[in-house]
Amino acid sequence: MKLVCAQTHLNSHLSLVSRAVSSRPTHPVLANVLLKADQSTQRVILSAFDLSLGIQTSFPAQVEESGVLTLPAKLLSDIISRLPDGDVTIESDAEGSHVTTLTSASGRYQVRGMGAEEFPELPKIEEGEQTHLVADALVDGLRGSLFAASADETKQVLTGVHVSLQPDGLEFAATDGHRLAVVKTIEEDAKSESEPQLDVTVPAKALQELMKMLDRQNGNAVDVRFDQGQVVFEWADQRLTSRLLEGQYPNYRQLVPRQFTHQLTIDRRLFLSSLERISVLADQKNNIVKVHLDPAAQQLTLSVDAQDVGSGREAIPAQISGEGMEIAFNVRYLLDGLKAINTAEVQMQLNTSTSPVILSPLGSLKMTYLVMPVQVRS
Amino acid sequence: MKLVCAQTHLNSHLSLVSRAVSSRPTHPVLANVLLKADQSTQRVILSAFDLSLGIQTSFPAQVEESGVLTLPAKLLSDIISRLPDGDVTIESDAEGSHVTTLTSASGRYQVRGMGAEEFPELPKIEEGEQTHLVADALVDGLRGSLFAASADETKQVLTGVHVSLQPDGLEFAATDGHRLAVVKTIEEDAKSESEPQLDVTVPAKALQELMKMLDRQNGNAVDVRFDQGQVVFEWADQRLTSRLLEGQYPNYRQLVPRQFTHQLTIDRRLFLSSLERISVLADQKNNIVKVHLDPAAQQLTLSVDAQDVGSGREAIPAQISGEGMEIAFNVRYLLDGLKAINTAEVQMQLNTSTSPVILSPLGSLKMTYLVMPVQVRS
Repeated sequence: MKLVCAQTHLNSHLSLVSRAVSSRPTHPVLANVLLKADQSTQRVILSAFDLSLGIQTSFPAQVEESGVLTLPAKLLSDIISRLPDGDVTIESDAEGSHVTTLTSASGRYQVRGMGAEEFPELPKIEEGEQTHLVADALVDGLRGSLFAASADETKQVLTGVHVSLQPDGLEFAATDGHRLAVVKTIEEDAKSESEPQLDVTVPAKALQELMKMLDRQNGNAVDVRFDQGQVVFEWADQRLTSRLLEGQYPNYRQLVPRQFTHQLTIDRRLFLSSLERISVLADQKNNIVKVHLDPAAQQLTLSVDAQDVGSGREAIPAQISGEGMEIAFNVRYLLDGLKAINTAEVQMQLNTSTSPVILSPLGSLKMTYLVMPVQVRS
Repeated sequence: MKLVCAQTHLNSHLSLVSRAVSSRPTHPVLANVLLKADQSTQRVILSAFDLSLGIQTSFPAQVEESGVLTLPAKLLSDIISRLPDGDVTIESDAEGSHVTTLTSASGRYQVRGMGAEEFPELPKIEEGEQTHLVADALVDGLRGSLFAASADETKQVLTGVHVSLQPDGLEFAATDGHRLAVVKTIEEDAKSESEPQLDVTVPAKALQELMKMLDRQNGNAVDVRFDQGQVVFEWADQRLTSRLLEGQYPNYRQLVPRQFTHQLTIDRRLFLSSLERISVLADQKNNIVKVHLDPAAQQLTLSVDAQDVGSGREAIPAQISGEGMEIAFNVRYLLDGLKAINTAEVQMQLNTSTSPVILSPLGSLKMTYLVMPVQVRS
């Protein structure tokens, strides 16, 4: 194998795939990236796969001799990222030795690799359900749901985001048992007329990587394929694959109330910054913040009383319909939701101080964030 | 006590003094900052002191009632840093309760403090040696020496920087036993005509804070006072005090060779970036990098051979006088020195592969960086 490519290309694509390199590889080859150079297409394909998450990307190069091999991901990234701008030549010895030489303007490095035959193939889905999404819509869906997934590995399906394919787009849902985020992305030119019924749960870790990768893709179309065990996202010159989480996802739709006795419209930034200040004190006391609705003054009051330390009180203007009431929350859950929403105003809908509360953006995105209040002795 | 001040002032001065707040206070009051409001000067003085390092700063405020109290540093900083731009009112209750109310445009916070009488006074030096330095010169001296101090707390005096007062300025020296950095700052208008003889060792931690604080002071004059146990740096509206380290500092001047058989001039950035690349492989093998001097080619070659992992080789142009030779170093020590130097070119002077090597900037600053080579079996 012999190729010449730009250091900037190699470096940025290496850092992309590095996210799928296992930090504790069960087999030595899983600490490597697969590098495939194709003389006919004059492209290099890089792949990494930790047996759950797989990432593949390709970029143009001057390929003088086709070939395939694997190289230690961390060592390779560490060297390549420090090379100066300019061309890098990658050349591997005669078959079998796997010693690869990297040459740049100033130096020469030899790195010991492993044969490609040991590297597991990334999952492909030939049959299965398929849809297309605009990258932006997918990013919106992920940004609005991912944060609510559970970080507790013992919680199984709750560590993933539930994605359901519907005739007019995808619905994303995540919950850790205390709060629930649901986003519906509407696709105007959705391709799946056949109304496929598919509900899958994708590990949050894989979707976090997907979100980062798609963040720079703007209007690109993303091809999404599912089968029973895997999901594959593919766009431009990149591909991300992930295994699916097994198990029945909670029937979350029934949790969302349909009617409310109170409705508020609040400036999101004001609400967020007030909560951030008051969280300093709430952190000292079970994270609980009390929220007082004052429809007469059209004002929301946030308060925390952390006895030995101090107390705080913030007031923010709000459009409030319904009667005055007091309700308490875990301040972290409110903060998470308000950070995931990106509109200027949020709507808050509630019934009693013990029933689910809904936060949603006032704008185009169909997002529902459900938070359970906390019961406090007053 | 009652005062009104700008959130930006309070916030930036709080973060300055916070560096001297003890992370594991031996007495509860040491987790607090001392706040002193003076109606006659219309200023607020903030102080923090961990019994070793002390920082004091002052800023203008609208003081309506003089007073003094202490407040929990972390809680106060956390709240103040999140407040919106604008005025903050600080008001303490009747004497004795120490409950303090912070009021901003949007909210009100009550924080429980402690009486100022328990707060230890920052050291003052009435008698003792004194000199003046321009902030820039002091920063140069610190930047050129601090990195070479030992991080190993059991090494006593070696965890500090040795500062010696000389008729024409200050000399800074730091060593961890493997390398030594010495900087001489020349003061054209040095005030100490009496030729005081003073040699003190100041904890590196205190000097790191001093360097950060002085970085924004440019041409300001810094008043430096020493006595047997303390050093006090004072400038503009700020003061930093530190205890001194006890014990005899090594007689480092005798370690620096006077004559050399080899002399090199090297582009600092080229040398640094080549070393950074090769360090990726050196990290895999005792951090050792071999340096080959080739006077005929006027070239320096760096090489590492980490057998199971790979090998690397970098070549950089250099002006070399003396015969060809091979010498080995701990790559970290070379990197540290080259990062602390800020000139375009560095000079390297050496004799044999087992004797001390000197790196120095080619420019105005008088800095000497001595590194011991490593002996390797070839």
